[in-house]
Amino acid sequence: MSAESRFLSLLRAVATDPAARGLADDVALLEIGGVRLILTNDTMVEGVHYLPGDPPADIGWKLAAVNLSDLAAKGARPAGCLLSYALSGDESWDAAFLTGLNEALNRHAMPLLGGDTVKMPSAAPRSYSLTAIGEATGPVPARSGAQAGDRLYVTGPVGDAGVGLELALASAVAAGPLVEAYRRPRPRLAEGALLAPHVHAMMDVSDGLLLDASRMAAANGLAVTIDHIPLSTALEAVRGGSTATQIAAARAGDDYELLFALPAAMKPPVRAIPVGRFSAGAGLTLMIDGAVLPLPDRLGWEHD
Amino acid sequence: MSAESRFLSLLRAVATDPAARGLADDVALLEIGGVRLILTNDTMVEGVHYLPGDPPADIGWKLAAVNLSDLAAKGARPAGCLLSYALSGDESWDAAFLTGLNEALNRHAMPLLGGDTVKMPSAAPRSYSLTAIGEATGPVPARSGAQAGDRLYVTGPVGDAGVGLELALASAVAAGPLVEAYRRPRPRLAEGALLAPHVHAMMDVSDGLLLDASRMAAANGLAVTIDHIPLSTALEAVRGGSTATQIAAARAGDDYELLFALPAAMKPPVRAIPVGRFSAGAGLTLMIDGAVLPLPDRLGWEHD
Repeated sequence: MSAESRFLSLLRAVATDPAARGLADDVALLEIGGVRLILTNDTMVEGVHYLPGDPPADIGWKLAAVNLSDLAAKGARPAGCLLSYALSGDESWDAAFLTGLNEALNRHAMPLLGGDTVKMPSAAPRSYSLTAIGEATGPVPARSGAQAGDRLYVTGPVGDAGVGLELALASAVAAGPLVEAYRRPRPRLAEGALLAPHVHAMMDVSDGLLLDASRMAAANGLAVTIDHIPLSTALEAVRGGSTATQIAAARAGDDYELLFALPAAMKPPVRAIPVGRFSAGAGLTLMIDGAVLPLPDRLGWEHD
Repeated sequence: MSAESRFLSLLRAVATDPAARGLADDVALLEIGGVRLILTNDTMVEGVHYLPGDPPADIGWKLAAVNLSDLAAKGARPAGCLLSYALSGDESWDAAFLTGLNEALNRHAMPLLGGDTVKMPSAAPRSYSLTAIGEATGPVPARSGAQAGDRLYVTGPVGDAGVGLELALASAVAAGPLVEAYRRPRPRLAEGALLAPHVHAMMDVSDGLLLDASRMAAANGLAVTIDHIPLSTALEAVRGGSTATQIAAARAGDDYELLFALPAAMKPPVRAIPVGRFSAGAGLTLMIDGAVLPLPDRLGWEHD
């Protein structure tokens, strides 16, 4: 058990209100006067969640996008957000960060309502935190709710952001759709709103398809088989489509597609790619080209 | 204009939603489906907002208290909060932080609902951020709304926390009510709820009585005269009651008493101390023992 896991156990002992959902479901669901609020917070730390050389506008964009993605997985309407910002000491950097943040917020009709701005001691790594508030307008899916026999889908290919990160690490001037996928993820708010009334379970793929699918299976007390790993044409163009590439794509984080379970008889109401199915039992099975493969040592990105 | 002020100007250009209140009023007021939410975020940085040697339980308490104090100034009921936490690398430190946070949250019936836990690069200064959500149950006071002729009150003496900080800086084992005032401020939620329907204007005193009173006056387009600086018996016991001590107390931050304006004819519905009055004009006048004094160079604690 990691130090973070032990701290989360302590947090669970504090966060006993039902609205906290046992800290098991990415967001809190707080009902006040008949209004159902979806609450989430994501924090990004320099050198941990982004590269010091990443363009500041992209860091701002990504902070907004990862929070909006949590709302998307609940089918929630963005209602407002608060920013905790550590001044960088470089005013043009700060201004560019805010421009990127604003682009992502505007794109998704998410108003910035307030927050706090702090100075850090000089040379300290920066961190930025956003709290997003959404309003549930219908059923609110959870990680749990899937049933044996359900099909598992994602709203788009996986692995682009992982390769984009590798390209960005290799070259400061790397660009193109894969680097864009890493730096400017697109939260699937429209898809989430259309899916929420129908899915048995839903979450966003932030830590890799294999890891997040296995988490969803565990939350449902079910086994899951992943039998297809969808790759983008951009990814195949630089990495090919080998089994190793497919596994790498399924272990890569930062995709922010939606992962959801639907009854086998139901057609998804949005464009989506079937990637597997749930069955009675436990654990994850990986099949590629019809053959069961041994699981990689590490299924995905364990949170820091 | 400081770098922070310039950044706030940029933020204002982004935070144009009416719920943001122009980022001029400590909190956001977001109305959804007839429910009025009060939203605030405060972040504490090691070496900036607390001393590296402060007891972790007190740092946790204070993070909760400063956020709850913002709700108190709006007369809001605590509804839920989200924590962004940077693991310290010392599990007993983290556990103690959480214990203190939980004590303050429990004391004020504020449920912890979620958040994010991050690792920082080793040796990086830690920072902690809390987003508090309250529900307005009646009128929501602002900094503005005071009228010429109104009396200005605080809910308790000022300056204790400032002297407590000095004592803590001088000795690692300092204790007593003044150090307690610095480390474990008491948010005035009960007082805020009773005051909110009656006051013309209200805010918490986080940056010093002189500075916060002058901000309230500016927000109202009025002049303010401070004619009394209430000291605690604990403070007088260690610092006496000289004019210099009074001025120091009125410039000290971290008090978290409520500062409010009431019509001269109205008796405050809670225990409170009159400290001044508003009049037509602009600016701050300081009177002690009936004599007008020159203002100190720095009125209080300018936010970092």
